[in-house]
Amino acid sequence: MTMTKLTIIMFSGALDKALAAFVLASGAAASGWDVTVFFTFWGINVVRAENKKALQRKDTMSSMFGAMMPKGADNLPLSNMHMLGLGTSMMKRRMKEKNVKSLHDMILDAKELDAKLLVCDMSMDIMGLQKEEFIDEVDDIVGVGTYLKEAKDAEVNLFI
Amino acid sequence: MTMTKLTIIMFSGALDKALAAFVLASGAAASGWDVTVFFTFWGINVVRAENKKALQRKDTMSSMFGAMMPKGADNLPLSNMHMLGLGTSMMKRRMKEKNVKSLHDMILDAKELDAKLLVCDMSMDIMGLQKEEFIDEVDDIVGVGTYLKEAKDAEVNLFI
Amino acid sequence: MTMTKLTIIMFSGALDKALAAFVLASGAAASGWDVTVFFTFWGINVVRAENKKALQRKDTMSSMFGAMMPKGADNLPLSNMHMLGLGTSMMKRRMKEKNVKSLHDMILDAKELDAKLLVCDMSMDIMGLQKEEFIDEVDDIVGVGTYLKEAKDAEVNLFI
Repeated sequence: MTMTKLTIIMFSGALDKALAAFVLASGAAASGWDVTVFFTFWGINVVRAENKKALQRKDTMSSMFGAMMPKGADNLPLSNMHMLGLGTSMMKRRMKEKNVKSLHDMILDAKELDAKLLVCDMSMDIMGLQKEEFIDEVDDIVGVGTYLKEAKDAEVNLFI
Repeated sequence: MTMTKLTIIMFSGALDKALAAFVLASGAAASGWDVTVFFTFWGINVVRAENKKALQRKDTMSSMFGAMMPKGADNLPLSNMHMLGLGTSMMKRRMKEKNVKSLHDMILDAKELDAKLLVCDMSMDIMGLQKEEFIDEVDDIVGVGTYLKEAKDAEVNLFI
Repeated sequence: MTMTKLTIIMFSGALDKALAAFVLASGAAASGWDVTVFFTFWGINVVRAENKKALQRKDTMSSMFGAMMPKGADNLPLSNMHMLGLGTSMMKRRMKEKNVKSLHDMILDAKELDAKLLVCDMSMDIMGLQKEEFIDEVDDIVGVGTYLKEAKDAEVNLFI
């Protein structure tokens, strides 16, 4: 029996878009779907670890990118109504009040239900991140060919 | 005979993106496709009614979200070149000159051709909107499971 | 034998999103897929020629839109960390350092591998651009019906 399959390209590094992606990813995984999320461009910041360090020395531009980009699920801005962080903290408080899980917990949920988390090698290279800087839940660093192979067989493919 | 099917997740609350969604939705519906649009996050503002009131009293944060977010298809900002509203009014004037229908009329067209308009329950809850605040054209308030069921059988699934 | 097929709606006129689109488009075309990219709304600026002139005289609003919108692949802003152009030039320098092709070269690559580049007629009309203002690589100016027909038979459909 083949499973129904969902792939998501997580391009955005905004909290609201990452939440939308993981409501879908964890919902689909909970329904028994095969789920793969590809993190690319700003989206790779969604799976940056807050406290991990790069193993190799970074060149200046890598350090600059590293310093300017948000570090992981708890530090993402909103794409809209960010308002110097006020919108973001409103959104988070609101989610807690309404018993909606945090993005970080949704990512863990999806992983426990066997979702695959893949990081785009080209984006990692351009942004100057190293694989040791991602959360442990990331399964692999891959190229566009891997995405195409997965998406070809999926019923639902989204770019977020 | 099964119909060709389109689902759209309307995540954005920007006029230009909503226009793109409803050019596709009404175009597909006019070609005899089965069309479902899911409004989530900022996208739920696309189907907020301009003059309807909530039935239940709102807590402070719900009132704040309510006041900050745009009220319906005629009041959405552009995602780009918004320019304090100037871009938005240029775009609208231009559409009229070129005999392109307004977003509101495109939504009515899609509905008349049996498109389904569904609002995400979790987003409604987080933003503190109540179901009486949406336009009459909304068919139902649903969860992510409903989206997944619809998308699974659709030929075209878009996240906008 | 039918080919695997990818369609992309290029809605955004941001450099990073156009890069994501053409990494996918040229990657898929290189793997023997049938690829179609539809340029709509701000996305039509991705295929604006830098040095071509309109053949017919433009009304005021068309000239304004024309002046305000970026002219082609080499002049697009970033959607994020644009920082008055600093982010954009960092991104471009970085791509060169890492031997990633420029957007313009990726477009040429995709074309050489038979990708189709189609521009939305309605967007062209609203923005007041004329077909002589696009790069030679554009195959045709089409309506939403053409998109729907192509997307219906494609394994992967993305809105970027």
